[in-house]
Amino acid sequence: MSKTTLAIVAGISAATGAAASAVLFSSRSEKRPLPTTPVSTPTTPAPSYPTRFKDIVPPVDPNGLFQYGFPGPVSDLHPTLSTTSAFDRRTRNPQWVAEHITPASLSANNADRKHSYFVEDESIPSKFRAKLSDYFRSGYDRGHQVPAADAKWSQNALDQTFLLSNMCPQVGDGFNRDYWAHFEDFCRRLTNNFPSVRIVTGPLYLPRKDPEDGKWKVSYEVIGNPPNVSVPTHFYKVIFAEDGTTGGNVSLAAFVLPNARIANDKPLKDFEVPIEAVERASGLEFAGKLPMQRRKRLCEEVHCTVIVRDYMDRQKNLMGQAPGEKPLRGAG
Amino acid sequence: MSKTTLAIVAGISAATGAAASAVLFSSRSEKRPLPTTPVSTPTTPAPSYPTRFKDIVPPVDPNGLFQYGFPGPVSDLHPTLSTTSAFDRRTRNPQWVAEHITPASLSANNADRKHSYFVEDESIPSKFRAKLSDYFRSGYDRGHQVPAADAKWSQNALDQTFLLSNMCPQVGDGFNRDYWAHFEDFCRRLTNNFPSVRIVTGPLYLPRKDPEDGKWKVSYEVIGNPPNVSVPTHFYKVIFAEDGTTGGNVSLAAFVLPNARIANDKPLKDFEVPIEAVERASGLEFAGKLPMQRRKRLCEEVHCTVIVRDYMDRQKNLMGQAPGEKPLRGAG
Repeated sequence: MSKTTLAIVAGISAATGAAASAVLFSSRSEKRPLPTTPVSTPTTPAPSYPTRFKDIVPPVDPNGLFQYGFPGPVSDLHPTLSTTSAFDRRTRNPQWVAEHITPASLSANNADRKHSYFVEDESIPSKFRAKLSDYFRSGYDRGHQVPAADAKWSQNALDQTFLLSNMCPQVGDGFNRDYWAHFEDFCRRLTNNFPSVRIVTGPLYLPRKDPEDGKWKVSYEVIGNPPNVSVPTHFYKVIFAEDGTTGGNVSLAAFVLPNARIANDKPLKDFEVPIEAVERASGLEFAGKLPMQRRKRLCEEVHCTVIVRDYMDRQKNLMGQAPGEKPLRGAG
Repeated sequence: MSKTTLAIVAGISAATGAAASAVLFSSRSEKRPLPTTPVSTPTTPAPSYPTRFKDIVPPVDPNGLFQYGFPGPVSDLHPTLSTTSAFDRRTRNPQWVAEHITPASLSANNADRKHSYFVEDESIPSKFRAKLSDYFRSGYDRGHQVPAADAKWSQNALDQTFLLSNMCPQVGDGFNRDYWAHFEDFCRRLTNNFPSVRIVTGPLYLPRKDPEDGKWKVSYEVIGNPPNVSVPTHFYKVIFAEDGTTGGNVSLAAFVLPNARIANDKPLKDFEVPIEAVERASGLEFAGKLPMQRRKRLCEEVHCTVIVRDYMDRQKNLMGQAPGEKPLRGAG
C-alpha cells in the first residue's frame, strides 16, 4: 500500500474498529483472471430518469446507483430552541448556524451555564460526527458559532448551544476568548437599535497566496486521532437587523475574521466584506429572497465597533458567575 | 482592511464586477451611535418550527432566517445521459459523478470525440461554477471523472461527459494521461466479467502528517484568477460490479489514488481501501442499502491490475483517431 493509503486506512481502522473492513464483504471466493471472454447476455436495467434527449434510448442508467443508497451529501439540518444548523460531514464542522435574538430574549436570564455541558450531536451518524475526544488537548477551543450568552432565556436553549454541531475549533487566546467575543457582544448590542436581529455564523477555509510560488493555497489543520475535525482558517457572520415590521427594512452586514489572535485595537470595520464574498467562499447563499429595496447597510446605520472587555469580567457579567470563579474554556 | 479581507474582497470584485457590492445595499443614511436606549416594543415573529420542548414558548425563531432564502448547501444534482453528478459549490468540483457501463454500451461506437468540447455547466449559478478560464494555463488537466471513452454509444452522451461539472483539476503527465487512464481501462475491462458495472468517481482533500510538527494538515491549490477551483489531493472510485440478476450479488471495491504522478509499475491493489474509508474522507455514503449477504469483494473475484498502454496508442484505439493525430488534452 502507498503511504497515503495506509494513512487513511489506519485512520478508518482506528475510528471504526479493525472489524469494520472485514464485515464490508460477505464472502471470499476464487480469483478469476481478468479479462476473459465477454458475457453473452448483459442485463441492462431500464433507465429510470427522464432525459432531455427523448429520441435516444440509453443503454445505461447512471441513476441505477441509487438502488444501493443515495450518496449524499446530507446536511444534517438540526433545528433546536436556540439554533438551526447545517452540518458538513466532510469537515465535521457546521456549514452555518442560525440564531435569532431580541431585546426580550437577551434580557431573560433563566439559565445557568454551570449546568450546561459540551455534547456530541447524536443526530449525526457516528462516522461523520465531531467527537469530544477530537478537541481534547488539540490546542483549540470548542468555539460556539451561536454564542451561549445569546440563549440564557431557557436552560434547554442554553444547553442546546453546547452541541458540537454548534462548534468549530477556534484559537482561544486572542480570538475566541477575546476579539471574537467582543464581536459577539457587538451583535448583542444591535438589539439596542433593532427589535429583532438574525445572525448566521460559520467556518471558512480560505486560500492565501504562497509568497514562494505565487499560487493560491488552502491549508488547515485537522484535529483528532485519527484526524477528524477541520480547523477553519476564518469565520463569518452575516447579520440581518430587522426593523420589526412585516416586509420592513433589513440592515445587512457580513464580516469575515481570521481564526487567529486579533489585536483588540483592530477596527471591526476592517473585517466587513460584501455578503457575496461570504457566499462565494462558503458556497452558500444568504439573502436571495430579500428584495434590494428592503436592504440597508448596517454599518451605515450604526457604528460597527467592538467594545473591549476583559474575558473574566465578561464571564461574570454575562453568566452571573461569582468573582474568582474560573471562566469556562471554549466559551463562545 | 486586513490583508485577508482585501484578498477575498478583491477576489469577489474581480469575479462579479465592481458594481456587485454597490448594488448589495439599497440606500445610505446617517450613522446612529450604538448602543442607544433599547427599543420599547420588539416585534418577535412566532416560531414556525416544532421543537422537542413543547412546554417552552421560545421568544425567538432561528428558522425565521429562511424568509430571506435557505442558505443551502445546494448539491446541483445533474443527471445526463451518461453521468449523474452532485456538485460542491465551495470547492467548485463535483462531489461525485456516477456512471453505468455494460458490454453493449462500450461496444457501441456512435460518437466522435473530435465533435465534443469542454463546456461550463450552466445549470450551476455563475458565482459557484467552475470556469473554462480557471483551468486555462493552470498546469492541470480538465480531468474527466466519468471518462469520455465510457460514453461512445451516442454523441450526446459523449458530449455530456465534457461538462466541467464532470471535471476536476488533475495532474496530466503520469496521472490523468497515464496511471489514472490505465485505472479507467481496468474499470472498462470489468465488463468482460460482469454484465453491468456502476462506478462512482470523485475528488478528496486528504490531510497528511506534517513531519515538522506532527500535525495532520490538508493543503491544496486553488486555480483561477481570482482563485476558484480547488485542486483535489486524491481521487476515489467506488465500483459496483453486478451479476446481472435482480437482487443478485454485487462485487465491490474502492480505490483512492493521489493526484500525482504514479509509476506504471505500482500495483493497483496498493490503492484499494475499505469503502468506509472513502465515506469518511468524502462525507458521502455508498452502499448503505446493499445487504451484506449480496456483497462480494471485487479484488477476490478478479485480478485488480492495470495494463499499461501508451497514451497515444490508447487515444487511437479508444477514439478511432487517425495515427499521427494529437491526443486531446485533459482527456479522461
